[in-house]
Amino acid sequence: MSGSSFGQIFKVSTFGESHGKGVGVIIDGVTPGIELDEKDIQFQLDRRKPGQSSITTQRKESDKIHILSGVFEGLTTGTPLGMVLYNEDQISSDYNSIKDLFRPGHADFSYLKKYRIRDHRGSGRASGRETSARVAAGAVALKILNSKGIKITAYTIKAAGIECTQRDLNIIENNKLRACDSKAAEKMEKIIETLADEGDSAGGIVECLVTGINPGLGEPVFDKIDAELAKAMISLGAVKAIEFGLGFKCADLKGSEHNDEMDKDGFKSNNAGGIIGGITTGENIIFRIAVKPTSSISKEQKTVDIQGIEKKIKTEGRHDPCICPRIVPVVEAMTALVVIDMYKRQAALMA
Amino acid sequence: MSGSSFGQIFKVSTFGESHGKGVGVIIDGVTPGIELDEKDIQFQLDRRKPGQSSITTQRKESDKIHILSGVFEGLTTGTPLGMVLYNEDQISSDYNSIKDLFRPGHADFSYLKKYRIRDHRGSGRASGRETSARVAAGAVALKILNSKGIKITAYTIKAAGIECTQRDLNIIENNKLRACDSKAAEKMEKIIETLADEGDSAGGIVECLVTGINPGLGEPVFDKIDAELAKAMISLGAVKAIEFGLGFKCADLKGSEHNDEMDKDGFKSNNAGGIIGGITTGENIIFRIAVKPTSSISKEQKTVDIQGIEKKIKTEGRHDPCICPRIVPVVEAMTALVVIDMYKRQAALMA
Amino acid sequence: MSGSSFGQIFKVSTFGESHGKGVGVIIDGVTPGIELDEKDIQFQLDRRKPGQSSITTQRKESDKIHILSGVFEGLTTGTPLGMVLYNEDQISSDYNSIKDLFRPGHADFSYLKKYRIRDHRGSGRASGRETSARVAAGAVALKILNSKGIKITAYTIKAAGIECTQRDLNIIENNKLRACDSKAAEKMEKIIETLADEGDSAGGIVECLVTGINPGLGEPVFDKIDAELAKAMISLGAVKAIEFGLGFKCADLKGSEHNDEMDKDGFKSNNAGGIIGGITTGENIIFRIAVKPTSSISKEQKTVDIQGIEKKIKTEGRHDPCICPRIVPVVEAMTALVVIDMYKRQAALMA
Amino acid sequence: MSGSSFGQIFKVSTFGESHGKGVGVIIDGVTPGIELDEKDIQFQLDRRKPGQSSITTQRKESDKIHILSGVFEGLTTGTPLGMVLYNEDQISSDYNSIKDLFRPGHADFSYLKKYRIRDHRGSGRASGRETSARVAAGAVALKILNSKGIKITAYTIKAAGIECTQRDLNIIENNKLRACDSKAAEKMEKIIETLADEGDSAGGIVECLVTGINPGLGEPVFDKIDAELAKAMISLGAVKAIEFGLGFKCADLKGSEHNDEMDKDGFKSNNAGGIIGGITTGENIIFRIAVKPTSSISKEQKTVDIQGIEKKIKTEGRHDPCICPRIVPVVEAMTALVVIDMYKRQAALMA
Repeated sequence: MSGSSFGQIFKVSTFGESHGKGVGVIIDGVTPGIELDEKDIQFQLDRRKPGQSSITTQRKESDKIHILSGVFEGLTTGTPLGMVLYNEDQISSDYNSIKDLFRPGHADFSYLKKYRIRDHRGSGRASGRETSARVAAGAVALKILNSKGIKITAYTIKAAGIECTQRDLNIIENNKLRACDSKAAEKMEKIIETLADEGDSAGGIVECLVTGINPGLGEPVFDKIDAELAKAMISLGAVKAIEFGLGFKCADLKGSEHNDEMDKDGFKSNNAGGIIGGITTGENIIFRIAVKPTSSISKEQKTVDIQGIEKKIKTEGRHDPCICPRIVPVVEAMTALVVIDMYKRQAALMA
Repeated sequence: MSGSSFGQIFKVSTFGESHGKGVGVIIDGVTPGIELDEKDIQFQLDRRKPGQSSITTQRKESDKIHILSGVFEGLTTGTPLGMVLYNEDQISSDYNSIKDLFRPGHADFSYLKKYRIRDHRGSGRASGRETSARVAAGAVALKILNSKGIKITAYTIKAAGIECTQRDLNIIENNKLRACDSKAAEKMEKIIETLADEGDSAGGIVECLVTGINPGLGEPVFDKIDAELAKAMISLGAVKAIEFGLGFKCADLKGSEHNDEMDKDGFKSNNAGGIIGGITTGENIIFRIAVKPTSSISKEQKTVDIQGIEKKIKTEGRHDPCICPRIVPVVEAMTALVVIDMYKRQAALMA
Repeated sequence: MSGSSFGQIFKVSTFGESHGKGVGVIIDGVTPGIELDEKDIQFQLDRRKPGQSSITTQRKESDKIHILSGVFEGLTTGTPLGMVLYNEDQISSDYNSIKDLFRPGHADFSYLKKYRIRDHRGSGRASGRETSARVAAGAVALKILNSKGIKITAYTIKAAGIECTQRDLNIIENNKLRACDSKAAEKMEKIIETLADEGDSAGGIVECLVTGINPGLGEPVFDKIDAELAKAMISLGAVKAIEFGLGFKCADLKGSEHNDEMDKDGFKSNNAGGIIGGITTGENIIFRIAVKPTSSISKEQKTVDIQGIEKKIKTEGRHDPCICPRIVPVVEAMTALVVIDMYKRQAALMA
Repeated sequence: MSGSSFGQIFKVSTFGESHGKGVGVIIDGVTPGIELDEKDIQFQLDRRKPGQSSITTQRKESDKIHILSGVFEGLTTGTPLGMVLYNEDQISSDYNSIKDLFRPGHADFSYLKKYRIRDHRGSGRASGRETSARVAAGAVALKILNSKGIKITAYTIKAAGIECTQRDLNIIENNKLRACDSKAAEKMEKIIETLADEGDSAGGIVECLVTGINPGLGEPVFDKIDAELAKAMISLGAVKAIEFGLGFKCADLKGSEHNDEMDKDGFKSNNAGGIIGGITTGENIIFRIAVKPTSSISKEQKTVDIQGIEKKIKTEGRHDPCICPRIVPVVEAMTALVVIDMYKRQAALMA
């Protein structure tokens, strides 16, 4: 009953730590007969990998995908699709100095409380590297969904206190923040570079838009599609909040303002974010997540060691001063995993 | 693969519609040998039931719990605990006039798209009445958790635009809003009564606090305890957003500000809301949810019927002008279901 | 993680004890829009109910089905289908004398070891009455499967040492044993009546035939359709063995004898029982189960009480001297639950 | 909802085909802090691997285990344990000649019907090689169970028509059949060698004994321990039947003969095979399975190709003339997976 599987029909099971042999994923329930190439997956992994710009960590991870099973002569076979990314060049000894310290903002303390044992090398299973297995699985889901006309796009709308004032989805891949507003992106970048120099980090907000989605997806009363998306997003280590449609703003509105009225052309507004009663309406799904500032900072902080002795700590090495640009493909991947599962669950219900 | 079950070990399966024979729940995985009386459950149901005050719906629902199985001579047997609340006095004919209309903000449209059939009487399965089954199940979980020293308290912190400026948990049950600030509660009440008179409704924010929680609960990487809480909360029809600890505020902070430092007495702050890496730290869990203004309003709204013909609609009858006070026990119940499941999952892992 | 749910997509959760308020079942994942009447279910329940003949128990159980949810205006809605059979006229005091004794062949001892508490009234959850919930759920599955041309027929092929020498499926409902050979049935009946007079009971073998089944159903490598059928059958309290196709006979054959060859008309034999590699071939599924002699006998037997003191016990009251005829509808029901789930899982895979 | 996962708490997910990159398994839910070495797993794999004797296939498979994750400094971490066995030296071209033929007794036909695509190389996912992933997972479970005093031993009791007349568990590993009777083993061996020379194969019966088992394990009403064992065994491609305790013999017995009576020393017999009502009694679990004669034989057989044209087929290469000795460690592994899962589920229930 441990929690390393996600999805009911398109079921993803991940494994691996940042400094073991590798990280990987098995997908059980892949539609057979889909054309699939390692390139399809590598493309998404490259969007997540470190070292893409001055505001991502300069660590080297080749993040090269290896398909171990489930594909034969270029087509998925319907049997479990196994994929692995072998770890390379990790320097575990880097972590020896913090072996017995709890890094503030990290899961060191809670992991030790849970498992009574801790792989201290680079956060072990709690490392962001774990999300590359999610991205690999999501790439398969995205390929299938795209063929059905469903498109998923995430982008930074706020970082380091700077907010995007426009939504230009064409420029997302053209700026280091994967933001939807070039001018805002420039400002974010500058502030973040300064924070990086200070050994500090910045938080932000990422928005995700799903277009071309079928109405009728979602499984009330518990596995509503927004509920599953919320779980998917909050399961990412850096995400502390999620809101759908108008989100927290709804608290200040009247029903007559918030309700989405309809006319002969369909919904007149989309305050609900494309989901009502936990089921898609066919309108675009839209949600936002809060991304906390990276916990790994080289500024000195107070902590204790496993004996409870007070210590000072600096997390050395190059870390992401803002995780937003690299979380974007992870958000897309997790969204894809939720949507494809719901798509297949609906097919099962109606069969 | 339909979604009417929740939890892995303490597994809750609900059924029932607002205008059928009743709503109910089966809990599989209840610890045997627990003293359990229908009164334990009725107490929580009475906190959720309609007609408690001027700002809740005046509908009459007796909401009387009947335990059908799983309890013998006052003790749980470890076999499935079946409970049902029979429906009474529903006047289904009230809904005949809106039989073919999609009520704005309601799940009428999305349910029809999903199931191609719709029980139009009082929202059917999408009715808020469904949550009484959750409250009944949660009451059992709460009883067990309380005996372990874990306490769960939810309360309104904002409604109709008015925000609580203090957190007095002793007064929650003494005001109609279940708010934690008497003065704010008075203001909320007045505004909401006015809105009700206008046939409109108000949204709000509810906060939930869990104290006495063990460190080490949560199942990374997908079934993190915050991920499961997020799913649990967003699975409530009226909830559009959730945030843990500082939540969306973290987007504007630096890592050095957001990280919770430690000293010999433990954590020096709780910006994370008691959960790091998806596992409890032992600090209080704290999260907030956005509650949308009630969709059922008697103000005239634009909509279409199932043929797409434009219509005007007023949702007649007495509805809750603000759902916050009645969602409080539901939030507590769902939180209890998540916590007890994680508690048992941890026991299974370590066994 | 308790085990009162069955199936992944057409998911059945049962509850209830023989001497509590009732037994019932929730089915989550019922295809919406199916015509369903309580009569469809009652028909199957009546085939299972006590008191049908001289060789079934003379206990009175009305076994009247009540649909609580999931059906609206005669059609399934796709939401959870809740059904309950209220218990009537049970005389719990009958069981007071055996309250502290372990009845040989019964689950009294193992239940107490597991739950540390025991509902001694009529076996509680371990009672055969629990299977009426399965039959009710199975009736819904059977209705859907029949509309797809899939037919499931079980029948006694051996009882009290007498074996059927022919398979006449037209006479099954015309003899007290539900056997497929009238002459054999007559002999069985006589022996069983004598055993009943002696306060003893008889075992037997039931065979199940599924015709019209699609090829391609089953989910390797663990959830093969034969694996799920085996689980389904062995989950019945009286069933101690199962074999598919030639079953145990295969141990004595050569590969060249056992392999089913093919020609242009398809398979030339069906030694495999319609399933190869855990997937249906489209040939008829055929399997047999061993039904143990009823444990409840009025002959005196040795046992101990909960203190370990040696005692003599006679299980008074009228019990089934042979459970075969009444297990037939239960076998059909469980088979239907497996097949419909596999049918829907296949639809989900290919979607 | 595809079926490549097994277990609820100690959850095993396998992947891989006989002629792809490798086969592997992830175990989620491994108790943290257990000493685990690749040698523990290799030992069991070596018992299953080909080429052990004159009556097993002479194929070379190194079957070398690689632990990819979940172990740190020799201890399990409680995070997913990933293991892989890379394939080596498979000569896929061997299978080109049968690419379009359905081999009798093989899953070629049913796989094509299900997935509409087929990896023809050495049976793909339906290959016996898939079971090495089960053995690897089972080895971890066995290690944990052994430390609790639970011992699992399987052995051949019949093969090629020869039955063991004694149960000497000390000699199992000393004969090629892994039989429990030396004299019978010699006879089996001779017959099987002759069959092998004729290009034919033999079936058999394997028995499994579990000692030191706790009473109280099993999760009624569906996930009874015997039900789960039945599923586990029938999920093996070569297994066509299973019986517990007296098994099919119970059909011919009276209740007074079959019931296990008790006295102050406990049960006086174990006709039930250690399980009553689906829960262990603490007596030894005992069950038997029927192993079909190996489908791959070099004798000429009739079949058709994918166009339905009649063909003759000989399955060339060295295959196991009797699978019994190599299925023994697989049976032990699957039994271990069921028992450990039930052990942990019981801990979860009582927590």
